[in-house]
Amino acid sequence: MPARVEVQAEPGVVAVIGVGLIGGSVGLALKMRGLAREVVGVGRDRDILERAERRGAIDRGTTSLPEGVARADVVVVCTPVDRLTETALAAAEACPETALVTDVGSVKRRIVEEAERHPRARSLFVGAHPITGSERSGADHARADLFENRACVLTPSASVSHAQVARAASFWSRLGCRVHEMDAVEHDEILAYTSHLPHAAASALAAAVPGDWLALAAGAYRDGTRVAAADSALWTAIFRENRGPLLKAIGQMQEQLDAVKFALMTDDEDAIRECWERARERRIRYDALHATPQATNSEQAR
Amino acid sequence: MPARVEVQAEPGVVAVIGVGLIGGSVGLALKMRGLAREVVGVGRDRDILERAERRGAIDRGTTSLPEGVARADVVVVCTPVDRLTETALAAAEACPETALVTDVGSVKRRIVEEAERHPRARSLFVGAHPITGSERSGADHARADLFENRACVLTPSASVSHAQVARAASFWSRLGCRVHEMDAVEHDEILAYTSHLPHAAASALAAAVPGDWLALAAGAYRDGTRVAAADSALWTAIFRENRGPLLKAIGQMQEQLDAVKFALMTDDEDAIRECWERARERRIRYDALHATPQATNSEQAR
Repeated sequence: MPARVEVQAEPGVVAVIGVGLIGGSVGLALKMRGLAREVVGVGRDRDILERAERRGAIDRGTTSLPEGVARADVVVVCTPVDRLTETALAAAEACPETALVTDVGSVKRRIVEEAERHPRARSLFVGAHPITGSERSGADHARADLFENRACVLTPSASVSHAQVARAASFWSRLGCRVHEMDAVEHDEILAYTSHLPHAAASALAAAVPGDWLALAAGAYRDGTRVAAADSALWTAIFRENRGPLLKAIGQMQEQLDAVKFALMTDDEDAIRECWERARERRIRYDALHATPQATNSEQAR
Repeated sequence: MPARVEVQAEPGVVAVIGVGLIGGSVGLALKMRGLAREVVGVGRDRDILERAERRGAIDRGTTSLPEGVARADVVVVCTPVDRLTETALAAAEACPETALVTDVGSVKRRIVEEAERHPRARSLFVGAHPITGSERSGADHARADLFENRACVLTPSASVSHAQVARAASFWSRLGCRVHEMDAVEHDEILAYTSHLPHAAASALAAAVPGDWLALAAGAYRDGTRVAAADSALWTAIFRENRGPLLKAIGQMQEQLDAVKFALMTDDEDAIRECWERARERRIRYDALHATPQATNSEQAR
């Protein structure tokens, strides 16, 4: 079944489980782009569901997962990382057997492995990671354009059909994403460096500077620590979920700091300059890759 | 002699030595605010002087330091850090004995100590560090508002008069700065943490992420590495000049990274969350201190 058929089969009913910043933005984007006949929000907290409804991110909300996904054509699991797997499997059990189940988790190995072992999820679930977010949280900060021009990595298991993968690719690209596809283990290793390490570095930098001296901190500290303001529970869960690859990435950063430290200890001008030049080239390469005007100061990867 | 008398005595002739981003901005701010009768640019490169003149940052340029400062009421030394001391002493020798000599260096111990030992500089020189800058360089990026609402730290030596310090305070506050005063050694220790460490961290983070993976890096990497694009020669000089305090600050950051690493190795949820919370509080404290709308994305401390 080619992807195009699926594209025409939508819009239908989309269930969004977890209507925070990301889930709320999925809902808003679906509504604004006319991509769903109905968006059903599923959550544990009635207040949060009502806020998402007032915000226009969902058409209706329910605290019952089975009820919320019962007629869904697409289920998008947007809970924090530590509840993703159980929620995705529960959704796969309760949704129609023709549905697509996808998610937004920033760590993919465990959910993909467990879905592959699950009798229904193994053919319904296509893991996804739209690389976007904000240091803010909650549906109040949701934005219809959160996914525009953002990379979204699909990490399908071997058990899922090409048609189902094409359907997930279609879903995310219609929300504005540039869709990539890779193995879940590879995804987690890369994201440990490109997103989780920058968060660990921001956090370590923020804590390293004595509070009494912050009046004399300016732009370099401000930008270098911006994401340290992100939600602690959310990031604790992400760090734990990807701790193996993240440990390796932190080690890599420590090696770079050691190199600068050694160059400073020996007052080796050439070595200090080489550290700078190496970093500068890397940063300039990032700028060249991301030259399209897509990023504002309030956005972040995770 | 109270500062107010000095305020009325200006505007006069101001010599700006080194007309890059900072020197050019000093010139522009003086001209725009009508604070100088004449701004003389002093530099080694005629092209750069001509560019600064076209930009309106200086009234005229000269490659002769003695000629440039001969009639100056105020001399502002804006060369890179590794040429500051010799330039400030040479200026003190060639300028009128009634002049104020100040600078913009981001490391202060050596220049203050050497000025104190110099027969003329000891009474003329008042070290200053306006905490501003950009990852860009050159007079083309100079801005008249670069100093507005920025902290400027004065680090006077014991040999300079209160009147001369008041004059320097008046000069910098008229350019828009909030003026602080502290010991040069204390300044260097604080700035190692609030500015030089954030640059070292940005640089280490930039280099730690493999280039082939940068397509999947987004906001956290972008902001965390912004200042890694700064001029290598400039920052090599700053790092060398402040290497003792900077080594201590890098050590402090490594301790924070070690703490996260250990918490990850032991999968200690509470410890991971505590690392996050500690950093988050520090960052929120920074935000509270800098709540006035002063900072744009292109600015940085150094």
